[in-house]
Amino acid sequence: VSAPSAPTGREPTLKTVRLVVSGLGNIGRRYLDILIGKAGLLRARYGLVFHVVGAADSRGAAFDPAGLDLAEIVRLKKAGRSAADYPRGYTPSGRGRAGLPPLALIEQLDADVLCESTPVSLDDGEPGLSCMRAAMRKGMHVVTPNKGPLVLAYRELTALAQQQGVRLLFCGTVAGGLPAINLGQRDMAGATIERLEALPNLTTSYILDQMTRGLPYAEALAAAQAQGCAEADPSLDVEGWDAANKLVILANSVLGMPATLGDVAVEGITGLTLADLETAKANGRTIKLVASAVRREDGSYTLRVGPVGLPAEHPLARLGGQQMGIVYHTDIYGTISAAILEEEPTPSSATMLRDLLTIYAAP
Amino acid sequence: VSAPSAPTGREPTLKTVRLVVSGLGNIGRRYLDILIGKAGLLRARYGLVFHVVGAADSRGAAFDPAGLDLAEIVRLKKAGRSAADYPRGYTPSGRGRAGLPPLALIEQLDADVLCESTPVSLDDGEPGLSCMRAAMRKGMHVVTPNKGPLVLAYRELTALAQQQGVRLLFCGTVAGGLPAINLGQRDMAGATIERLEALPNLTTSYILDQMTRGLPYAEALAAAQAQGCAEADPSLDVEGWDAANKLVILANSVLGMPATLGDVAVEGITGLTLADLETAKANGRTIKLVASAVRREDGSYTLRVGPVGLPAEHPLARLGGQQMGIVYHTDIYGTISAAILEEEPTPSSATMLRDLLTIYAAP
Repeated sequence: VSAPSAPTGREPTLKTVRLVVSGLGNIGRRYLDILIGKAGLLRARYGLVFHVVGAADSRGAAFDPAGLDLAEIVRLKKAGRSAADYPRGYTPSGRGRAGLPPLALIEQLDADVLCESTPVSLDDGEPGLSCMRAAMRKGMHVVTPNKGPLVLAYRELTALAQQQGVRLLFCGTVAGGLPAINLGQRDMAGATIERLEALPNLTTSYILDQMTRGLPYAEALAAAQAQGCAEADPSLDVEGWDAANKLVILANSVLGMPATLGDVAVEGITGLTLADLETAKANGRTIKLVASAVRREDGSYTLRVGPVGLPAEHPLARLGGQQMGIVYHTDIYGTISAAILEEEPTPSSATMLRDLLTIYAAP
Repeated sequence: VSAPSAPTGREPTLKTVRLVVSGLGNIGRRYLDILIGKAGLLRARYGLVFHVVGAADSRGAAFDPAGLDLAEIVRLKKAGRSAADYPRGYTPSGRGRAGLPPLALIEQLDADVLCESTPVSLDDGEPGLSCMRAAMRKGMHVVTPNKGPLVLAYRELTALAQQQGVRLLFCGTVAGGLPAINLGQRDMAGATIERLEALPNLTTSYILDQMTRGLPYAEALAAAQAQGCAEADPSLDVEGWDAANKLVILANSVLGMPATLGDVAVEGITGLTLADLETAKANGRTIKLVASAVRREDGSYTLRVGPVGLPAEHPLARLGGQQMGIVYHTDIYGTISAAILEEEPTPSSATMLRDLLTIYAAP
């Protein structure tokens, strides 16, 4: 059962699950921290032991069929080194190998789940896409917050998962740690979703929040970059394409619409001035970059990303610069909204654990 | 899969599920409306056909192993009559019987799921409690928004479900159509919930909302009663016990704490004056009746229901008179909140469909 149980004093039957972790950046490294910190709870509450048998970054990989020492990998990464530097002899069967790509790691290891968090590529989805394909072809489940492969190959990947009888879970692709997809897929079951609206992009939320406080766009962007919540090249975020990618995933996974990026009308926030925000405020509205899907008569959806002046009573109007949210307007479940306050990337990293537990600890 | 699929032009393999519906009041009757309205979608999207083989109200029951005509039952109920008046000969095998209690109906029918929405009793949980026990002993699943049996016999009922290998699902017991329990059980998996706060009671939300607009307590209560959102005897709501019952269910089902009503410190809203609300407002706060659980060092929780002045930035502060909400403060998933706008009882009724689809349509 997924609900925590009161301690019973006896050890439950333990199940060992072997993981390959691909990508050890901001998300992947924190994910290892979570696995370390949660080992006791996962064992006691769910009877689960997760062994990371392989871990890869862009410079190489470490592997140990008996389970890597995760603290050692975290130490290496924090010191600016690579999993490839995993010391031979540290454990009898563990070793690192420079230049070993994640795809080769997946192909040569026996494991149950690929945890994929390599950098997002919206050009070709690589290296994530090939790794996901290879893992599923081997019968492994995949959990990932990596948008790229899902945006580019949603139908192919979900069909492959079904064909192979494995799970492909990606609850972290849309709004960080917010279970926006789970809410849509599971809790809106049986409903017709008339409309959804989402604020899925932290960078633009932060910039608009700063602008609401009187900072012009260029300064707000600089502040976001100084905070580390905007990239050096912020165009993907501020021009609305990150939100559009997330909307494509929502359309496919929740709305049952085989949408691609070309189906989304996209407008960013780069053209917004302080005067625009002040005019909106004078009218009781707050401007947010909203990703929306509105149901058409034929059952498909009109997809749009753009600035919208939300009235004060709108569930997303009050979300601050470190929040993301979603609203489902339905026929039978009323209007259901959800939001997350995500002040650092741990919740996004933890989505891979949530997905793992959907596979191994669901009632 | 629970995600809707694009139409493929071919009929999926159909599975027929036999339901007994006990309780045909506000919730149960609307549930039949939902089953009627959704039959086509459930068949096309999930390959599911739900046959209601028995339906009971306080005056009797109707049954038909081939499936009752639900529209006929709804017509009878709307005309102030009973399921017992279901006309013999309407279908070859269907008939009504005055005085047949739901327990006897369950015992004599072959069915897969009991859908239980008889009136809530917090004294003895009846008639729901006995019906749930009988159904599970027969190997039937149970879906219910009925708080009474869960508050009074949580451990017994969940143990019975486990022992019998059946599902007992009750996502509608806590906050109408809001999937507060699902969010806690499934999407907080692996987390330590440091604190939760909920506004689970519509009546008090409505009254406090009216008071915020300047109506004194007695007039706000009268307005709620005129609106049909407060009982003639409103004490269960306004004295906080309804919220406390819901907190007990959250504690058991999400927090893993075997709490009972005696563990909750309860204060209602009957002592609140307009001056209290004005003072709060002057301090930038809004008074709400909050049900909260705060984690203690030993892993159990301090449970409390009472008026709290929430600061403007609190996710629950802005909820209006027809909204309910919940906030989970966690260690690894940040702070996640969810709310529902529920303007009439359909979402609460629909929770039984959500639970059914958790059983029969989950991926």
